[in-house]
Amino acid sequence: MTISKENIEEQALLKELEKYTTSIAHLGHVEIGVTNLEKSTWFFTEVMGLYISDQEDDRVYLRAWQDFDHHTLVLKQSDTSGVKQVGWRVATEQALKGFEKQLTDMNIDFNWVEAGQKKAIGDSIQFKSPAGLPVELYWEKELYVNNDPAIASKMPSHPSKYTGKGVAPRRFDHVNFMVNDVEKEQQWWSDFLGIHHRYYVKNEEDVRIGSWLSRTNIAHEIALMRNANQDGALFHHLAYYLDSPDELIRACNLMAENDIKIEWGPGKHGTSGAQFIYVIEPSGNRVEIWTGGLLIFAPDWEPIKWSPEVGLLGLDLWGSVAPESYFTYGTKLL
Amino acid sequence: MTISKENIEEQALLKELEKYTTSIAHLGHVEIGVTNLEKSTWFFTEVMGLYISDQEDDRVYLRAWQDFDHHTLVLKQSDTSGVKQVGWRVATEQALKGFEKQLTDMNIDFNWVEAGQKKAIGDSIQFKSPAGLPVELYWEKELYVNNDPAIASKMPSHPSKYTGKGVAPRRFDHVNFMVNDVEKEQQWWSDFLGIHHRYYVKNEEDVRIGSWLSRTNIAHEIALMRNANQDGALFHHLAYYLDSPDELIRACNLMAENDIKIEWGPGKHGTSGAQFIYVIEPSGNRVEIWTGGLLIFAPDWEPIKWSPEVGLLGLDLWGSVAPESYFTYGTKLL
Amino acid sequence: MTISKENIEEQALLKELEKYTTSIAHLGHVEIGVTNLEKSTWFFTEVMGLYISDQEDDRVYLRAWQDFDHHTLVLKQSDTSGVKQVGWRVATEQALKGFEKQLTDMNIDFNWVEAGQKKAIGDSIQFKSPAGLPVELYWEKELYVNNDPAIASKMPSHPSKYTGKGVAPRRFDHVNFMVNDVEKEQQWWSDFLGIHHRYYVKNEEDVRIGSWLSRTNIAHEIALMRNANQDGALFHHLAYYLDSPDELIRACNLMAENDIKIEWGPGKHGTSGAQFIYVIEPSGNRVEIWTGGLLIFAPDWEPIKWSPEVGLLGLDLWGSVAPESYFTYGTKLL
Amino acid sequence: MTISKENIEEQALLKELEKYTTSIAHLGHVEIGVTNLEKSTWFFTEVMGLYISDQEDDRVYLRAWQDFDHHTLVLKQSDTSGVKQVGWRVATEQALKGFEKQLTDMNIDFNWVEAGQKKAIGDSIQFKSPAGLPVELYWEKELYVNNDPAIASKMPSHPSKYTGKGVAPRRFDHVNFMVNDVEKEQQWWSDFLGIHHRYYVKNEEDVRIGSWLSRTNIAHEIALMRNANQDGALFHHLAYYLDSPDELIRACNLMAENDIKIEWGPGKHGTSGAQFIYVIEPSGNRVEIWTGGLLIFAPDWEPIKWSPEVGLLGLDLWGSVAPESYFTYGTKLL
Repeated sequence: MTISKENIEEQALLKELEKYTTSIAHLGHVEIGVTNLEKSTWFFTEVMGLYISDQEDDRVYLRAWQDFDHHTLVLKQSDTSGVKQVGWRVATEQALKGFEKQLTDMNIDFNWVEAGQKKAIGDSIQFKSPAGLPVELYWEKELYVNNDPAIASKMPSHPSKYTGKGVAPRRFDHVNFMVNDVEKEQQWWSDFLGIHHRYYVKNEEDVRIGSWLSRTNIAHEIALMRNANQDGALFHHLAYYLDSPDELIRACNLMAENDIKIEWGPGKHGTSGAQFIYVIEPSGNRVEIWTGGLLIFAPDWEPIKWSPEVGLLGLDLWGSVAPESYFTYGTKLL
Repeated sequence: MTISKENIEEQALLKELEKYTTSIAHLGHVEIGVTNLEKSTWFFTEVMGLYISDQEDDRVYLRAWQDFDHHTLVLKQSDTSGVKQVGWRVATEQALKGFEKQLTDMNIDFNWVEAGQKKAIGDSIQFKSPAGLPVELYWEKELYVNNDPAIASKMPSHPSKYTGKGVAPRRFDHVNFMVNDVEKEQQWWSDFLGIHHRYYVKNEEDVRIGSWLSRTNIAHEIALMRNANQDGALFHHLAYYLDSPDELIRACNLMAENDIKIEWGPGKHGTSGAQFIYVIEPSGNRVEIWTGGLLIFAPDWEPIKWSPEVGLLGLDLWGSVAPESYFTYGTKLL
Repeated sequence: MTISKENIEEQALLKELEKYTTSIAHLGHVEIGVTNLEKSTWFFTEVMGLYISDQEDDRVYLRAWQDFDHHTLVLKQSDTSGVKQVGWRVATEQALKGFEKQLTDMNIDFNWVEAGQKKAIGDSIQFKSPAGLPVELYWEKELYVNNDPAIASKMPSHPSKYTGKGVAPRRFDHVNFMVNDVEKEQQWWSDFLGIHHRYYVKNEEDVRIGSWLSRTNIAHEIALMRNANQDGALFHHLAYYLDSPDELIRACNLMAENDIKIEWGPGKHGTSGAQFIYVIEPSGNRVEIWTGGLLIFAPDWEPIKWSPEVGLLGLDLWGSVAPESYFTYGTKLL
Repeated sequence: MTISKENIEEQALLKELEKYTTSIAHLGHVEIGVTNLEKSTWFFTEVMGLYISDQEDDRVYLRAWQDFDHHTLVLKQSDTSGVKQVGWRVATEQALKGFEKQLTDMNIDFNWVEAGQKKAIGDSIQFKSPAGLPVELYWEKELYVNNDPAIASKMPSHPSKYTGKGVAPRRFDHVNFMVNDVEKEQQWWSDFLGIHHRYYVKNEEDVRIGSWLSRTNIAHEIALMRNANQDGALFHHLAYYLDSPDELIRACNLMAENDIKIEWGPGKHGTSGAQFIYVIEPSGNRVEIWTGGLLIFAPDWEPIKWSPEVGLLGLDLWGSVAPESYFTYGTKLL
């Protein structure tokens, strides 16, 4: 192609177009390593009330009753507990190629994983964020097909029946990581992946201790919190969503009866307005159960700043103080 | 510009790009005519617990406690009750010009309304859908600025304080119209405005009796229901969103104590999974208060079909039957 | 004993004392006949989430998770569905003898049933009210002893674990009968059995269409409603109690998924303030699930009158109208 | 009267009868001293949503929306915050004379306060428990008569309208005191006043750290907790009752927006199963807002023991640990 005015304009147009087509649609799933697959499976099915959509020798595929996809959580038997992969669905079929090009341009290592390699997932690209957080982008993912009469529903909007068993969240919600430098990591997620910055908390030294981001209208799909120990990135938690505060209190009761320690909560994040509890599943990964809060619609949303004077209310509007472990404990990036 | 290969490709690129930039972000507000401004204002403030952000001789501007915009509802003293305008925010600054071009190309009449003509709104374009539903597109809208100490909150995520007064919905949710031909109208909204079709109900004659659409991740921002009388388009209702089923029951109690007739509910729409009540405000417009239900994330979502066998459960999962008025009564398009 | 002033005073004192010792403590259980024991057992265990504490060939003994007694519901395989017995615990050990004496004095037929004849129940007296409602008085009843590790709780206040399975009511609440003459029947229950009259509804002909009574502080333990067909006494329903309106809505969802028709509700009885749904269990008996409402503490409580102008709000504060079947359908007195 | 067999038997009968007639019906009200009447009134009306039924220069009479009595709380301007009086309604008209006789027999000082001395209360007897807790017994108390159209309800079961303003509890629930010796104090309340012992917690030294008692079917009307400082009796808190966990969470939000510190909670007392928060009102008295939990019906109820292994779960089933202040801080007995 010879260089010409038309050429240049076309390049600019292509670049602009790429901005729209090479984008992410939403968070899709998380794969975690568990040291005790049996006990963790018990927790996620009997206590949490998730459903097994498939399983292999060392893996269990799970979803909430209204998750439309084949799975939103994968448990993998592992020597160490922690996170293995976080999957994000891209917004268009051509986006995968777009991201491949961008990663190449930016000299970021990635793996292109062919369809068929991973259960229920089409082609995908895997790479790491600057802090080392795993990212997996994909376009195709099988929808859940109900072939278990025990949980078949005649309601077309119910991919499986609402049985009310266990905590019974409606859907997968978000993931949360601890990193050393929240601000830097957030900028990469927003600039490169287009995940919008929604709200953040600053401490009295004017250091950002948390940033919450989402591509969709929910308050956040990924959160980045400052590791108080400054010893690198850790997996903080994964979260499922409940329909009401009352169901959260029901969840507390189920935790008590099942000897699952509630690390913190019930409380209400002032930032998002969502009510929460945190528990540690049998293999040591933290799980949040949450409900309510705000949705964000503005296309030019300005991140909400929770300054030090009210920062603790950003973490719990009702005034409880998080336990020390909340700011230091996490599981590994596997 | 001479015709050439480059020209043609550039045109194709521009067209593709236009598809992404000329799009809608979200439903923003609804303006209704009320025959009794005083009583309707009483209802929306004292019973519903909305806040007045501004008022003029014949207009009252209202918002829910966590609506970030200047207003989401406008009441205008009017000879006839009904809807005057439904405002949608576009996704990008250039989208307004894009829609202007498209309307011109399609020979659809529109008004370009300069900024300053309407309170808190920048430039806007007003036109009608095929069934005559009013559409107002805008990019700029003032955010709510709290200058009333009585409802100022120290919580940065609270544009105004949660006082718990009245029904106290969190935010504006959606609008609903009755039309003669649901299918045809839905296609226009999806094709021209890019509002995704989410779910629909068919009756035993295989006629579509309702379609629900949204641009964002919420279940719907606009619904189109078949006018059982087939006498044209009517305004069916506007809806505000509550945080929990328990708050909906609290709303029922407040309606009872305030002599506001609940037309239907509490029930649960099987389609969206949201719990609802419908009431008629003092000037005759229908208002829905609802809570819960599903969010939709898939970029290639296939509309869920509720066929006749379960269609009534789509309307109320719990089995109650809507009153006749629900399928025939609406207020005017003003 | 010769007749003397002392004798006479002693008799008066004894009579006065008898008034206090010959009294009822609370409603204890209901035994119903079911034409399909298997399906009814499925309903009460899998859908309602009651627990089986014992079973025989043709009987199943059930209780809610926090019912402290051995059982609060007995299902008995039967040719006809309906109620067989309603058990009331008396307030003192000597009360049984007191009631025996009073029944004899009043020429009311009764059976004295020796301990051991009925599972988990000590000596009891069985007789009928004027309208033919079965009454069983007893003092001794075994407490539930948990010998099932699957539902054992380490919480001393939990006779069995809260598992959250099914509707999972906290406890048995009340029974309800239709009779021809509400006023007459209520007077007998209050005068002879000392069950206090709490509130009533009158229709436009000034006829009492319902009276609600309790011995304890709960709003009612037995209700008497006018049979609109005037064809005698019928069993209207039995009721279990939930902790919150949100759990009631969860119950609605479980009914929908399990194809159990909700006859009426969710609504709110204006009289008691309790939220309700009514369903028909597989053998045809009506079951109410309810939550909330008032407690009554005053020892000189005056029954609350709901006159015709607001009577329908007494039935549903939110304005829905009960289906015709609610005023006419019941199962038999077996 | 000469001594004779008949005499002696008559005395025994009279004594037995006295046991039944000289009894308490229920907790009626609490009068507290507040150092800042204006701010405390603001808290109880604007934040808590209680209603003023009467007021004097230095006193405000309050009730919850469904409290049927004239008042359940009295605020009195005072130099020191604390409790002044706790009122209990007796079960029969003759009980006041019975208690007078018993107090005389037991050489316990008391004041007989003539009707008219205290607003809305008939004759009363005032005395102290062994630990010094104030007790006021009365038979007559005016019912609340609605003469304020703003809160008049057409619902006969609503002594005033449910407006939903503030926390809006349904009714007054209980009082709680700290004493040095829980066991001894509990025995006096049960033996002399007939307030049944419902459940208790023991610490690892086998010392009782709390006992909860009620005359009615509610879990407790008075609680006695061990003062960890062993410096005598203090007023721990008064409590109002909400209808649902969701309303408790709404209460938390209102506390946050009104800058009222939540001392502990939301949590769930394992003992009673009730959900709670504790706040300190502006004059320093502790207030509990609670909801749910068990009712007690058995006339021969055995107090539930929470032994040290699970005692903390008795305080919070969900595992949070009460702040130090909870075991040491109280206001004075005035």
